[in-house]
Amino acid sequence: MQKLFEYNWQVREDWFKWCKAVPEEELVKERTGGVGSILFTLVHIIDVEYSWILELQGKEVPPAPNSEEIKSVDKVREFSAQCHEEVNAFVTSWTSELEEKVLEETNSSGEIERLKYGEVMRHVIAHEIHHIGQLSIWSREMNRQPVTANLIRRGLFEN
Amino acid sequence: MQKLFEYNWQVREDWFKWCKAVPEEELVKERTGGVGSILFTLVHIIDVEYSWILELQGKEVPPAPNSEEIKSVDKVREFSAQCHEEVNAFVTSWTSELEEKVLEETNSSGEIERLKYGEVMRHVIAHEIHHIGQLSIWSREMNRQPVTANLIRRGLFEN
Repeated sequence: MQKLFEYNWQVREDWFKWCKAVPEEELVKERTGGVGSILFTLVHIIDVEYSWILELQGKEVPPAPNSEEIKSVDKVREFSAQCHEEVNAFVTSWTSELEEKVLEETNSSGEIERLKYGEVMRHVIAHEIHHIGQLSIWSREMNRQPVTANLIRRGLFEN
Repeated sequence: MQKLFEYNWQVREDWFKWCKAVPEEELVKERTGGVGSILFTLVHIIDVEYSWILELQGKEVPPAPNSEEIKSVDKVREFSAQCHEEVNAFVTSWTSELEEKVLEETNSSGEIERLKYGEVMRHVIAHEIHHIGQLSIWSREMNRQPVTANLIRRGLFEN
């Protein structure tokens, strides 16, 4: 479980570096699909991860940042770092006993939903990888080489 | 581990259904990014999963199908079903003892690489999710609603 989170965090960091080489207007430009712009897709990834991890801990979830608030790579990176402390602490202390624990929450239709903690964690992992795949298409459409999505050869399994 | 494979297989099946509603020329049309067309991205996902699973078992890996061989949704689905038996057997019999087992293989530069089995399995998972993210952008560019990437609410954790 942890390894896939670590993979996501490495890839996210690579995309921040990639962003530094791209004019900011390209990063905030509205695009087709995903959640709009490159920068806001990154904000969305961070926000969704953070919100679920808070939720699993029964903590209050702040409203999602709006796209007007976070309009530079540095600001997105700062937001990621702010959220990361909480997220990292939860992920690194994850044990398989939490797998079957149940989160009850009210969905957008007002119904009570029961989700397993293991389900939510995998949802968060898949959510980031999926959106990163979207960035890779936009990157090619801009004639830029995207960050590699390979999980092997990142040194993630050396310890 | 298994749950993320099951998620991928469900999502893949949903994309096959999605494809059935799309004119075939749209599916084989060359697009920017990914591995070219929608259909060939699906072939590539299946092929990469199958090849790694064979490799982990020390079995011979057949050459990747070329894009001329598999040019209809039905053919891609058939290819997926053919590979699935082998893949499914390996994935469902996976145990955590295999995590640290080492695969030695010669990479494209002729160097010997050592990869952990757990690393390869997660690579395969991330590989499919990433490419599916790409399909979702192409789908929006075609003004079509993509398959949902949500892992929650798929009934994957009901047993």
